Amino acid sequence: MKVTFQIQGSAPVEIECNAGDNLLELARRANVAIDAPCSGNGSCGKCRVQLLSGELESVPSRHITPEEYEAGWRLSCNCKVAGDCTVLVPDIASAYQSRMKTADLSSPEEVAIFQETQEQLKESGIAFANPFLSLELTMAEPSLEDTMPDNERLTRAIREQLEVETVEIPYCVMEKLASTLRRERFHVRVKGEKQGNTFRCMEITGAQDSVIAGCAIDIGTTTVTMVLVDLTSGKILAKGSSGNGQIRYGADVINRIIQQAKPGGRKSLQDAIIKETLTPIIANLCRSAGISARSILRLSVGANTTMNHLFVGVDAEPVRMEPYIPSFFSWEGLKAGDLKLPANPLAPVIIAPNIGSYVGGDITAGTLATGLWDSDEMSLFIDLGTNGEIVFGNRDFMMSCACSAGPAFEGGDISCGMRATDGAIEACVLDKDTMEPTLTIVGDPEQKPVGICGSGIIDIISELFRCGVINAKGLFVREGSRVRRDEHGMGRFVLAAPEESETGREISINEVDIDNFIRAKGAIFSAIHTLLEAVDMDSSMIDRVYVAGGIGSGINMKNSVNIGMLPDVELEKFRYIGNSSLSGAYAMVMSDAAVEKCTQLATNMTYLELSTHPGYMDNFVAACFLPHTDARLFPNSRQEV
Amino acid sequence: MKVTFQIQGSAPVEIECNAGDNLLELARRANVAIDAPCSGNGSCGKCRVQLLSGELESVPSRHITPEEYEAGWRLSCNCKVAGDCTVLVPDIASAYQSRMKTADLSSPEEVAIFQETQEQLKESGIAFANPFLSLELTMAEPSLEDTMPDNERLTRAIREQLEVETVEIPYCVMEKLASTLRRERFHVRVKGEKQGNTFRCMEITGAQDSVIAGCAIDIGTTTVTMVLVDLTSGKILAKGSSGNGQIRYGADVINRIIQQAKPGGRKSLQDAIIKETLTPIIANLCRSAGISARSILRLSVGANTTMNHLFVGVDAEPVRMEPYIPSFFSWEGLKAGDLKLPANPLAPVIIAPNIGSYVGGDITAGTLATGLWDSDEMSLFIDLGTNGEIVFGNRDFMMSCACSAGPAFEGGDISCGMRATDGAIEACVLDKDTMEPTLTIVGDPEQKPVGICGSGIIDIISELFRCGVINAKGLFVREGSRVRRDEHGMGRFVLAAPEESETGREISINEVDIDNFIRAKGAIFSAIHTLLEAVDMDSSMIDRVYVAGGIGSGINMKNSVNIGMLPDVELEKFRYIGNSSLSGAYAMVMSDAAVEKCTQLATNMTYLELSTHPGYMDNFVAACFLPHTDARLFPNSRQEV
Repeated sequence: MKVTFQIQGSAPVEIECNAGDNLLELARRANVAIDAPCSGNGSCGKCRVQLLSGELESVPSRHITPEEYEAGWRLSCNCKVAGDCTVLVPDIASAYQSRMKTADLSSPEEVAIFQETQEQLKESGIAFANPFLSLELTMAEPSLEDTMPDNERLTRAIREQLEVETVEIPYCVMEKLASTLRRERFHVRVKGEKQGNTFRCMEITGAQDSVIAGCAIDIGTTTVTMVLVDLTSGKILAKGSSGNGQIRYGADVINRIIQQAKPGGRKSLQDAIIKETLTPIIANLCRSAGISARSILRLSVGANTTMNHLFVGVDAEPVRMEPYIPSFFSWEGLKAGDLKLPANPLAPVIIAPNIGSYVGGDITAGTLATGLWDSDEMSLFIDLGTNGEIVFGNRDFMMSCACSAGPAFEGGDISCGMRATDGAIEACVLDKDTMEPTLTIVGDPEQKPVGICGSGIIDIISELFRCGVINAKGLFVREGSRVRRDEHGMGRFVLAAPEESETGREISINEVDIDNFIRAKGAIFSAIHTLLEAVDMDSSMIDRVYVAGGIGSGINMKNSVNIGMLPDVELEKFRYIGNSSLSGAYAMVMSDAAVEKCTQLATNMTYLELSTHPGYMDNFVAACFLPHTDARLFPNSRQEV
Repeated sequence: MKVTFQIQGSAPVEIECNAGDNLLELARRANVAIDAPCSGNGSCGKCRVQLLSGELESVPSRHITPEEYEAGWRLSCNCKVAGDCTVLVPDIASAYQSRMKTADLSSPEEVAIFQETQEQLKESGIAFANPFLSLELTMAEPSLEDTMPDNERLTRAIREQLEVETVEIPYCVMEKLASTLRRERFHVRVKGEKQGNTFRCMEITGAQDSVIAGCAIDIGTTTVTMVLVDLTSGKILAKGSSGNGQIRYGADVINRIIQQAKPGGRKSLQDAIIKETLTPIIANLCRSAGISARSILRLSVGANTTMNHLFVGVDAEPVRMEPYIPSFFSWEGLKAGDLKLPANPLAPVIIAPNIGSYVGGDITAGTLATGLWDSDEMSLFIDLGTNGEIVFGNRDFMMSCACSAGPAFEGGDISCGMRATDGAIEACVLDKDTMEPTLTIVGDPEQKPVGICGSGIIDIISELFRCGVINAKGLFVREGSRVRRDEHGMGRFVLAAPEESETGREISINEVDIDNFIRAKGAIFSAIHTLLEAVDMDSSMIDRVYVAGGIGSGINMKNSVNIGMLPDVELEKFRYIGNSSLSGAYAMVMSDAAVEKCTQLATNMTYLELSTHPGYMDNFVAACFLPHTDARLFPNSRQEV
């Protein structure tokens, strides 16, 4: 049998299969990206496809209405092939790339935050110096009087400019040395690295091609962001981001670890990040900066422990299995050529070190970026993503922990949830009396809403709570035209009726959604609370709160405190620092001192494993209320009714 | 149009083409090996194919008789495609592999010579020691009490056995570290290199897989020979040889340099040696030794300057163009992975250094093997191949030069010439009175002759001269039943009448053949003579003559002196040393001291460029007689009539 995937914005893909094959699995085999945050267990309802012709056998789902079913909509994870068929796949890849409100330096405000971070690192004494050089060389042409062979001639010319004993010429330079020298009439540029008494050539080009570049990459579970930088000046040459192509293997790290452990899985997950995600972005950045990929002489990566393992292609199973010891914390020795990244094959790939199974290089790089290690102030650093990671400390000590927040912040586990792309409700204010919502939508100002993203959910729940529409358990306690109940009595709040929405489907938030979200925010707050308890401290001792992460840029701090997600400290203590993993990675690609500092931070940071920590579960249960069972922790949270 | 090549012993190969395409070029495009020593200019007559069906447009050739033409035989370089056709291609690859009498350690005598050479190197103070180690490691499994990640655990275990500060774990080990440790229950073997305070891991396997191997390779213009050795014990694990797959691009280095300069040529020539020639031999040797290619931790190559350039894939054009300065003499930094050789990707590939455009690493490696650098005796070292290279000197000085002997020693440029495979006449004695020849044939004792190989030609010419059948100019001066003349009066000597030969074709040697050969031997002797003159010496001062090379093993020293090819010194001064390039490469793969010594030899050896040297041309002209125009140089050469 044959299944044809019609992909919005791309060429169709056909695959041969057998009756009974699972449609989502088939899509994975055919390299067709279908959004499946729950990795195919039917719970998230995101893997919707539309049957255009032919037959699929499927079980009913609460995520598909009878009208939608009639129109051919199915959850691909629920479908078995019953005959030749053609299905329409919503184009998630370009949706990611449309206008994600991730911290990808797309707004001037974010660029300013990014640059301020780097300036502060310099003030903290981090020298922005690296060993990479671009040398312009002019040599005499060989003659019967000057019979030096090409490689010795090159070595001599380099030694005239640099005080080095040894010049290493690797294969990738040697194989084009003779032809480049002659084509360029012995006036060339050599790019490479000076380490002590040795200069290592990495590239030879014409003399006019002078740029040497670095590439700083943040690999998030959901989103990948990177900047291409000039290694000499530090200038940002280009920037870009896209969804992590591994998303079709599951939204969270656990599902991806399970997938990579299947036969061929490690290769598939590695291909999804390297070939499908990073390679096209880097190629784009090089094109827009007008440089050759061979001029990228160093890369740095900020990523969580699992992402690091999948990126490197190392078995990630030990990350999730007791005794939770990853294959590596810190590892030097990776080259771009090992992973076939589009960069100089000899370019070192610096991986910001992991410190535990669930506190990875994104957090050590992020901690570097916060500068909290250089201050007497007690700082809390929270990276909000699919996983929430917390660091607390100052120049004298640092503690860290991680919790699984689940996909709620990215709109997963929420019936009308979506990522922060065009049409997402990103902010909301309710009229206390009429309960009429005022919505802010991502994208075109005339855009009708499509769904709700993470920052919108925080606002909506905070506003429903403030206006007394829901109680501390998240149950509806007021009635009104926008409060509806289904046949089982489950309440929901309608943000947009079918005629008000872009898709013609009602956009609402129900008690199950609210409960899911409360558990996500409860995980975050209880992690913070447990970490503070572990060092015998409490919220009042916090001098500063750094909030980072993909969700961060749209987040309303006051509302986040109001629902008991962030600790109740003065609002001026909060500082949004954008994509701190990318900021740290940038510092590391530019600066050897930053690499050294980050390694040192990782060595000095204590990791608290919450899953085995006594008290965490109690704290979690207590945090699963609005704002908390212990209202004294949130004196500023209030219901205005 | 379509051409089908039927290849003896292989599957047929089809290729689409246009009318008028040259058949030899098509064969090259289709990767079909056709022997073409003259690279397709119609002069050698070796690229014979048989038209089985269809049409080919061809011009007559002196190399094809009317009867043969009738039977479909054509020179492929002379044919244009005129329609769909099928041609039969004689299987030269397996002919090479059948029973070449090259110095490939196939006889016990050659193995003895090889081992004696190594023993003498040890006596000369070359320590046979290398930095490669195979470590058996047993580690504790990770637990909640011992939470070290895999890479640090491995480092700790290595440090328990070796006093090193740094353990480098490269990607090829890292990517399988987690899975290997767990599959082998933390009882593994690590293979790698200890340099000073650093141990570089290169491979991780199960504990039982203990062998670490090296591979020593002689890349000749015509033949490739190699041995797989145990890096710990020095034992030869396997050995093999085959024809150099580049042969279809021309028999000599000049034709191959011209070919590699064409678009895509460098890649084709490199593929021909690496993918088509070396890869299958190494894979075979690994199979027969029962080791994995990843266990090959170092390779060494003895090859002439052009072969070295083509092997590395570096433009060889500078080798043949004034000012004759190759792209490199000596180059460190090549890894097996750069060339995708079937070996550990990190294995260093040691290239014995070149010292000039026409004195390459085969000669520096060979000089190392002779041991002449450790003696007071004045030694002459002659490597007889497609090029002849000469070294003269002792522990105080060394001079070298090279001459182009052409393909005559391998049977090229000789009408009934062939390589030393089954059926070749390799030795000959004439009855002075009857002129009846007694032939020695390669292969089965009952084998009828097929053609004449290099050592056979030396014997035949020497015997014809001794018996007064030919004069000093190589012209026939006696008549007899075996001496025939064609319609132009050109004499020839019939060694086998059609009914006495395997192919039904007469096997003879004619005045053109003899003239070609005299020019080849003249080139060798005049090179020796010029080199001696350049240091103000003569033959009488030679204490020893080392003869090496592919032709070497069948060579009759007395006859070689008799025709004026080798200098007239006492026969006991001659020593046949087999494949000295391979002997030197073996020493280098086993011993860092040998690598150092070879580099030092190359630095200290003076290169005499004969093509621009005054006097060489006169010496060459004078040497184009039997034995020489100056008979005083050959007091022991005589005609017995």
